[in-house]
Amino acid sequence: MAAAAERLEGRAVRTPLLESPALSARLGGRLLVKAEPLQRTGSFKFRGAFNALAQLDPAQRRAGVVAYSSGNHAQGVAAAAQLLDVPATIVMPADAPAIKVANTKGYGAEVVLYDRFGEDREAIGRRIAAERGAVLVPPFDDPRVIAGQGTTGIEIARQAEALGLRIDAVVIPCSGGGLAAGCALALATLAPEAALYSAEPAGLDDTRRSLEAGMRVANDPAARSICDALLAAMPGELTFAVGRRLIAGGLAVSDAEVLRAVAVAFAELKLVVEPSGAAALAAVLAGKLDAAGKTVAVIASGGNVDPEVFVSALGGD
Amino acid sequence: MAAAAERLEGRAVRTPLLESPALSARLGGRLLVKAEPLQRTGSFKFRGAFNALAQLDPAQRRAGVVAYSSGNHAQGVAAAAQLLDVPATIVMPADAPAIKVANTKGYGAEVVLYDRFGEDREAIGRRIAAERGAVLVPPFDDPRVIAGQGTTGIEIARQAEALGLRIDAVVIPCSGGGLAAGCALALATLAPEAALYSAEPAGLDDTRRSLEAGMRVANDPAARSICDALLAAMPGELTFAVGRRLIAGGLAVSDAEVLRAVAVAFAELKLVVEPSGAAALAAVLAGKLDAAGKTVAVIASGGNVDPEVFVSALGGD
Repeated sequence: MAAAAERLEGRAVRTPLLESPALSARLGGRLLVKAEPLQRTGSFKFRGAFNALAQLDPAQRRAGVVAYSSGNHAQGVAAAAQLLDVPATIVMPADAPAIKVANTKGYGAEVVLYDRFGEDREAIGRRIAAERGAVLVPPFDDPRVIAGQGTTGIEIARQAEALGLRIDAVVIPCSGGGLAAGCALALATLAPEAALYSAEPAGLDDTRRSLEAGMRVANDPAARSICDALLAAMPGELTFAVGRRLIAGGLAVSDAEVLRAVAVAFAELKLVVEPSGAAALAAVLAGKLDAAGKTVAVIASGGNVDPEVFVSALGGD
Repeated sequence: MAAAAERLEGRAVRTPLLESPALSARLGGRLLVKAEPLQRTGSFKFRGAFNALAQLDPAQRRAGVVAYSSGNHAQGVAAAAQLLDVPATIVMPADAPAIKVANTKGYGAEVVLYDRFGEDREAIGRRIAAERGAVLVPPFDDPRVIAGQGTTGIEIARQAEALGLRIDAVVIPCSGGGLAAGCALALATLAPEAALYSAEPAGLDDTRRSLEAGMRVANDPAARSICDALLAAMPGELTFAVGRRLIAGGLAVSDAEVLRAVAVAFAELKLVVEPSGAAALAAVLAGKLDAAGKTVAVIASGGNVDPEVFVSALGGD
């Protein structure tokens, strides 16, 4: 993972670890917020994408890359591909937030839309990759992607240390588990005393239930959430193998709790956080984890939210 | 000013210098955004307030401080007073944004409201100070306040240097001129090649007109703007004495240009910026300063905006 951090040096933003004294006081502890909306492309996904693409050989770079994504991995891969001069094709759901589709095209990628409820994005991605001889960049279940996302955890540990703080807990928004697994690996050595928790939408809390069951279990395909980036059907094989050893437990939050957290991030942190990106903050604000007397770090994982959704969050409960 | 930076070490946030590659590409240059909404209290004003209060002697600290402010200086003084255990009374306009009044009270200050169109806040502030033996902390025309605000400029110079960039221009939201004067003093030695510009609401562009006239001129008292923090009647004596030597010129922006900049900061920077705080960004986005081929730093000076105003900005033109 040190190699990933080196590859990202000067390419990814070393995002700040924010604190609102008012929020900390309200919780009776110290709340640190890793501000990945300020990352290149507006989410942590650039880290894993760049780390993966930077390791392609020249022939692979010429052939290009394919990725499927609800939006943030799409932007991460597209931006990394643009920086490295690699052609990119991204398979995105037709109902992805408009900002995510527009930005992905803005980074020069070709976007192929599909029906999230009727088509299999992995099959479409594999078919395009086969046709073009392109490399598929998985959204989470890939060692290079996991290592890239883990640089977020390295930074959290170093930034907390610089503040003279010992972290008691870290809460991480979780879909397929790439960010959680990467951070878990980083923090296992850099902050071994910290307890790690995944944060997911209620009803799509496959990681929480998988951790409890000790095996990977899937979500009900009928489950829905405003958290468009946290809809993976079940944990990845690799990410769960890491998570079951290193993650203490899972927290689940309602859409209403998530929207309230978006509004709190607006008012108290001056940070634009998308619903999915606010899941960990929501879990702490809603008291799913007792922060009293503790130092708790949450990752705000992204900020790519359409204005209408943001406005609805500010409109209150 | 080095002493101010030392006093603020560990108290003020060293806010990031953000860049959106998409925005830079659109402008054909490099646009760097100093993110003071992420500062303690949500604006740069904490810097000057803390630097002033930290220099009070023990008797003055016991007697307390008084300040008059449209809101951001209010919060800065209140938060600095709370940290230093100094009683604070803040005179605020009755029509200040609700978030600014609520936060000022939240930092433990006593708030006295006045009618901005009928009463003289300076007279009210002086009367309260006289009655209580308290020290008046001026919002801008004070060497300690100017030095504190100037630490923003020190950081911009150092952060640009770390990026390997030479700054061609710096644009600074301007009301009484404390931030502009402080940054001008800092940058005169740290980035002497940079041209400095004030950014003000059109019709309330007293600094621009004063720079052109070579003497302080006042605004029309009937002028109005959505920029509630940029309504000072004319430049300060001290701030203008600095500004006339070190500021290249003034830029003026309409309310519509400011609201558009708030929306751009939301979409491209994931940063919550209040209208006043977006004046410098608005000036560059609206082409009042040609950024093509240049490295331009703008200060986003604050993020204390009521949700309704922010929502109206996101609603588009």
